[in-house]
Amino acid sequence: MQAHAYLAVDVIVMTVEGGELVGLLVKVGGGPFAGRWAFPGGLVGLGESLEEAARRELNAQTGLHDLYLEQLCTFGDPERDPRARVVSTAYFALVRSRETVLAAAKYTAVRWLPMRRLPRLAYDHNEMARVALERLRAKLEYTNIVYNLLPPEFTLGELQEVYEIILDRSLDRRNFRKKILTTGLLRGLRKQRRGAHRPATLYAFTRRSPMAVEML
Amino acid sequence: MQAHAYLAVDVIVMTVEGGELVGLLVKVGGGPFAGRWAFPGGLVGLGESLEEAARRELNAQTGLHDLYLEQLCTFGDPERDPRARVVSTAYFALVRSRETVLAAAKYTAVRWLPMRRLPRLAYDHNEMARVALERLRAKLEYTNIVYNLLPPEFTLGELQEVYEIILDRSLDRRNFRKKILTTGLLRGLRKQRRGAHRPATLYAFTRRSPMAVEML
Repeated sequence: MQAHAYLAVDVIVMTVEGGELVGLLVKVGGGPFAGRWAFPGGLVGLGESLEEAARRELNAQTGLHDLYLEQLCTFGDPERDPRARVVSTAYFALVRSRETVLAAAKYTAVRWLPMRRLPRLAYDHNEMARVALERLRAKLEYTNIVYNLLPPEFTLGELQEVYEIILDRSLDRRNFRKKILTTGLLRGLRKQRRGAHRPATLYAFTRRSPMAVEML
Repeated sequence: MQAHAYLAVDVIVMTVEGGELVGLLVKVGGGPFAGRWAFPGGLVGLGESLEEAARRELNAQTGLHDLYLEQLCTFGDPERDPRARVVSTAYFALVRSRETVLAAAKYTAVRWLPMRRLPRLAYDHNEMARVALERLRAKLEYTNIVYNLLPPEFTLGELQEVYEIILDRSLDRRNFRKKILTTGLLRGLRKQRRGAHRPATLYAFTRRSPMAVEML
């Protein structure tokens, strides 16, 4: 007997602000999880690809558009929704600031919540959050994934701060600088920022589109 | 109008042999793609998770069991199957040798074909192959993904050969050695293999289970 299922998509949008990694959640309006928080998402339409559905639902529920969405994982446990077999393909994205979220069209509430202290979410969304955080942390090691979290020009100290917030641990300053500069993900700008401390060299990402390290 | 779909899984099993990266394909027995090659897979059963279905189909069609399957990507284009909406979650795995494939229970033929010179496959399986190869190549840079392709003890020359076959380009020997030894993925065994050439130090993977580089 073969499973006929509803297709769903969910989108995990994260940013770093106030020294924390936060994720965008919406309050579920009805059904068995009414009142709980969940990542924005919904059912895929006929004739719609999974990514098209993810973009449509994200826009309708949060006002966000034109994000680079990366497919995270598909969650297909038969018990994940008590009403029917619903398989959900999760996408994730990083945005520059929580202020980019404009409107909450569909749900009663949209809120940024800290990814490391999420309440009990609807469906298997706590598991989605865990997988998203794991993927994000892994990608820090070998991609420029955080380019959306930083301005076009930044100091290595600012970059390290973003890394430390996501990894939830402090990094050795000298080792971080040495490692990150060997990756080829950054380029030095030959200019400095003057502040209260000694001048700091400014850097930019080699590309502000997805790029992975090529060590070999 | 919401999409109700069939759930499918496909499994891309690859190995390196005879200087080539090869993938395991089965001949499709019926339907619009009869006679074409495809990665082993099939429809998900009621009450079965996606990974359970992938293991069951792989075993039934090729005799392979107990592989470490990693979820690759879910393919959900509405047009990917002309008969119905079928969404397929693809998994991939590497095996030590093509000889581990024991039996072809369901399909008329099971064959290893070179991943870089695949014929026109059924469904969107050429696209699956492209995504699998891209993922595999990316993972060479920052994980021990090839541990299944090598014996417990190997020389850096043997490891480099596997990398070169998968990347389809030659690597500078000194640079490869330097980079791979900084990853922490390998440990030196303090013993050497004697052969026609000068003795070569033997290495093993730090772990023979999935492990990613932690540079920071």
